[in-house]
Amino acid sequence: MSEDANTRAEKNLARFATHTTINILRKIGTFPVIITYEPQGRRAEARLGDTLLEVALRVGVGIRTDCGGKGTCGKCRVVVNSSDYLNDLSPCEREHLTSREVSSKYRLACQASIARAEGKIIVNIPPESKVEARRFQVAGIERPVELKPAIRKVRIDLREPTLRDPMPDAERLLAELRKRSLLSEAEIDLETLRQMSEVMRDAGWQVSVVLWRNEKIICVERKDTTDRLYGFAVDIGTSKIVGNLVDLRSGETLFVNAVENPQLPYGEDVMSRIAYSSIGKETLEQMSSLVRQAINKLLEEACLESEASVRPEEVYEMAIAGNTVMHHLFLSIPPFYLSQAPYVPTLKRPMDIPSRELGMRANSGSNLYVLPVIAGFVGADAVADIIATGIHRTRKMSLLIDIGTNTEVVLGNKEELLCCSCASGPAFEGMHLRHGMKAVSGAIERIEMPSGGDDVVYETIDGEKAIGICGSGIIDAIASLFNQGTINKRGYFVNPTSERFISGDRGTEFLIAKRDSTAGGMNLTVSEEDILAILLAKAAVATGCRILMKRKGIVEKDIDQVLIAGAFGNHLNIANAKAIGLIPEVPLEKIALVGNTSISGAKMCLLSTRLRAEALSLSKKVKYVELAAEPGFAKEFSYSL
Amino acid sequence: MSEDANTRAEKNLARFATHTTINILRKIGTFPVIITYEPQGRRAEARLGDTLLEVALRVGVGIRTDCGGKGTCGKCRVVVNSSDYLNDLSPCEREHLTSREVSSKYRLACQASIARAEGKIIVNIPPESKVEARRFQVAGIERPVELKPAIRKVRIDLREPTLRDPMPDAERLLAELRKRSLLSEAEIDLETLRQMSEVMRDAGWQVSVVLWRNEKIICVERKDTTDRLYGFAVDIGTSKIVGNLVDLRSGETLFVNAVENPQLPYGEDVMSRIAYSSIGKETLEQMSSLVRQAINKLLEEACLESEASVRPEEVYEMAIAGNTVMHHLFLSIPPFYLSQAPYVPTLKRPMDIPSRELGMRANSGSNLYVLPVIAGFVGADAVADIIATGIHRTRKMSLLIDIGTNTEVVLGNKEELLCCSCASGPAFEGMHLRHGMKAVSGAIERIEMPSGGDDVVYETIDGEKAIGICGSGIIDAIASLFNQGTINKRGYFVNPTSERFISGDRGTEFLIAKRDSTAGGMNLTVSEEDILAILLAKAAVATGCRILMKRKGIVEKDIDQVLIAGAFGNHLNIANAKAIGLIPEVPLEKIALVGNTSISGAKMCLLSTRLRAEALSLSKKVKYVELAAEPGFAKEFSYSL
Repeated sequence: MSEDANTRAEKNLARFATHTTINILRKIGTFPVIITYEPQGRRAEARLGDTLLEVALRVGVGIRTDCGGKGTCGKCRVVVNSSDYLNDLSPCEREHLTSREVSSKYRLACQASIARAEGKIIVNIPPESKVEARRFQVAGIERPVELKPAIRKVRIDLREPTLRDPMPDAERLLAELRKRSLLSEAEIDLETLRQMSEVMRDAGWQVSVVLWRNEKIICVERKDTTDRLYGFAVDIGTSKIVGNLVDLRSGETLFVNAVENPQLPYGEDVMSRIAYSSIGKETLEQMSSLVRQAINKLLEEACLESEASVRPEEVYEMAIAGNTVMHHLFLSIPPFYLSQAPYVPTLKRPMDIPSRELGMRANSGSNLYVLPVIAGFVGADAVADIIATGIHRTRKMSLLIDIGTNTEVVLGNKEELLCCSCASGPAFEGMHLRHGMKAVSGAIERIEMPSGGDDVVYETIDGEKAIGICGSGIIDAIASLFNQGTINKRGYFVNPTSERFISGDRGTEFLIAKRDSTAGGMNLTVSEEDILAILLAKAAVATGCRILMKRKGIVEKDIDQVLIAGAFGNHLNIANAKAIGLIPEVPLEKIALVGNTSISGAKMCLLSTRLRAEALSLSKKVKYVELAAEPGFAKEFSYSL
Repeated sequence: MSEDANTRAEKNLARFATHTTINILRKIGTFPVIITYEPQGRRAEARLGDTLLEVALRVGVGIRTDCGGKGTCGKCRVVVNSSDYLNDLSPCEREHLTSREVSSKYRLACQASIARAEGKIIVNIPPESKVEARRFQVAGIERPVELKPAIRKVRIDLREPTLRDPMPDAERLLAELRKRSLLSEAEIDLETLRQMSEVMRDAGWQVSVVLWRNEKIICVERKDTTDRLYGFAVDIGTSKIVGNLVDLRSGETLFVNAVENPQLPYGEDVMSRIAYSSIGKETLEQMSSLVRQAINKLLEEACLESEASVRPEEVYEMAIAGNTVMHHLFLSIPPFYLSQAPYVPTLKRPMDIPSRELGMRANSGSNLYVLPVIAGFVGADAVADIIATGIHRTRKMSLLIDIGTNTEVVLGNKEELLCCSCASGPAFEGMHLRHGMKAVSGAIERIEMPSGGDDVVYETIDGEKAIGICGSGIIDAIASLFNQGTINKRGYFVNPTSERFISGDRGTEFLIAKRDSTAGGMNLTVSEEDILAILLAKAAVATGCRILMKRKGIVEKDIDQVLIAGAFGNHLNIANAKAIGLIPEVPLEKIALVGNTSISGAKMCLLSTRLRAEALSLSKKVKYVELAAEPGFAKEFSYSL
């Protein structure tokens, strides 16, 4: 490394260390240990002597217990990543857990308690101990796709070589493909060459040949396997990774799965991830490898669980979408300069890479197609959004808002598309809010106050007892309180005298769910801080929309459709989102929730090379508007606020 | 592995084990330990109590000793791979060797003696203890080459991105290359993308871009480095690997080096190597890795030792030639079917592979060009021979003979070329002969018998005291003895009464060098067995030549030139080679020794993409004649014999 690079690495390290320390200190407070309950991702603070069950109940994480924590039912089994902070096994744990389970780090949550100060524990709740199921937004709307995959498989019968006809295997294969007008000339993958000669002889010279884009032979298989042709599409989100196993012959989606992005411990937002991965080559490789391993797991799980019993080596192509930082990290391209003005990516063009070069466990000759990006903060996910919604193909003036920690806004139609990126932060995903949580089972996702502030009706995801409030719930609460006049335009409580107002350790809070009705037996509230966080987030998005409209010279009534993609999925109450100003003032019938269109777009590109050509053209043509460089930005932002 | 593959692996293992055991038993005889002296590669049999120096002197391997083996001078230092078969360190060794040397396995050859039965030892003689230098045939004739390398390096100044001009780095680079009409569209190597953004900023946006075939950007470097552009050509021979470091700007060869093929312990001929590498995936990978590591060492040594102080990352392309088995093993392609009729290779086409995919330590984006092959036993080395000699471009009827363990014969001119392969065995390389050795210092390379059988005059390589006799020496001896009538046409001694005939443990032998004049103090002789081995080898070659001539419908007088490439280099006495029938009956002035044309051809292809196109065309057009399938083969062979 040059001296400059060294200095930079040191600075990055210092910056990251400070960031991390502040975060941890803030969270620890007077509590010595932080427990993260997986797969919900719920964090909780614990004191010495607390059992894992007590803490879980306190924060509303459901763990099955039939005996009420006496240690007699043995149902509250959990897996703990480290026993360093816990007491020793109790006699009733020795009774209920097999020695194999003990060595696999199983504990009973009602028996395991905090025994050492200052640390972090991850508690994994296995499916049998769960009282809820996870819910990720794993699907979005899709346009119908004309199947045109890059992968083709053909069956070929070859003549066996003889002393009089000693043509080498590769040339024999190509000659036959040429003879049948299937291919004129092609590369052959090196790994395929290594296996091919044995495969041909084993199969008595009857083989199936997998072709990529008529350019490359990526696999030669024994006998006729032409009915097996699969692909895997992936959306790498900042907080979750979604996979779709697809039949390339029918276009059918065979299996959908998702997992939390394993980079989460290194920061909830992309900036923290950039900081950590910029410390040095090792941290970059670590971040990249975490995501790649997670994708491999999704791929293998999808293959195993799919009804077609797909083997990973029958997956011949993968398509990957994600925001620019996720895109760079996945490819092990340092994302550092994405965090520095003028925020340019290393590349925007789409990539076709042998997937084994990135350690993917699909077929060894398989191709990995990475969707192109548009700009530093308008990534391949935005390209996928556009592909999935088709706003680049219609005359309708469309406003596409993909809401997440970073919110991308695209405005325009087939003539021209403008886009920008808004730093909306994690509030919409329920993070850093008093009783916020992700949109998973037990989250309050809808709130109504039918007769003024004293009456609160809510719905939880999956109808479970309430654990916390997710983004759409908070927006409902704020909109209702605002409509009633209980909060003012600046987000402060007006005349907080109703019995719904309680005094918490962070000031006045509005009570949504009373302790007797919640899973954790605690009051679930919305605080003024929460309201401020949501208003800041919506101001960021609204500003982006307003600036693009101004640039385009249009007003609300010119917009034909508003499409809301991303984190909220189908949970968002559109009227309330309009009420708080997150969505511009357009008639409700013009607004649609479109879900996770990033995975839809990735999957559509996997199925159609024509759409890949469209994606390439989009990455070149969509005009990026850098908000920070817009003269009216500060004014617009304070207006939106 | 399938059951079939398992069975096959077992069979291969059995076959290899038998082969090896027979070899070893034959060699051990009544001697318990086999010592291989490196770097000469000379093997010797040793008894209990023999010192390493005694054995070395017995077989004529020179180890420096000033005190005559008393242990007082400390000059006979050698490195022994294993101390298992040796006595403990003697007091004078403790005196002369530092503890660091002891831990690096240094011994004094006069003190270390065989202490245990039945085993193998490798004794490495470091340069300071050598009394001779090695000599490999590392160069061949070359035609002048019009420089047209696949690699180009251009200097580019970029404009720094701003908020108003946030074009990503890759697109910025390509736009500038397009603007300067240097390139329209190109791939960018993934590893280059990973390094590029930092390089551009570090260099203040002044960079040098390395292009491969105008198709791919393989490297972006800081500032102007356009005066540094190197390549590395390699010939992988069955017994030696030769490297040439080349300046791609001038075409000049900067450094030439060679190393023994590290696969040698797994068999001297390609068949043994195939057998060993066919045992399973591990042995294949082992054989491949041995060669790749050896090439990396040559590359690094050439860079270090060259006057231009080239760094391996300044080597942007490599070109590789070698026979088909070496070619397959280098690429980790199983060579098994090359040993089974109809002996077809997996592929013949040339390959361009990212060199890092094969673990090469040249520039991380560098390309590795592998010359095409013609047939199972006419490999990329033969293509290189043709390219180097240019016989495909002339009207002259040419006969090209590349002599080695496997001898390739090519006959024809620009109209048509025929080729075949002859299993000549290792006799021409001095192997398996009574006092045979490779053509290195101390080898008797020329023998004359000016006045009949009683007077023998010989020359050794480098004028050293004689250690053994190499291939050209044996041919001289046989030719002289034959001319005198001392041996008959069948290779037996006629009337062996002269004092030159002695009775050895393998029957009657003809004395070439008397014990008082040899380095090892032993008589150096030619036995009837040696003569038979050489005659068998020459019969194989002569049969190949005759069959090709017959196919072509020509006789000796139609041949305009005979070119002898390969092992003999420039040592061969052409008249004697004609006398024993190795070379057809054509006038001496039509015969030329051309040296190692395989490395010349590889280097020429490295320098010219036009020659690569010629190589491709040759691999398709040169007609392979399978001797085993020729009706007249057996008859021709017995005639030649």
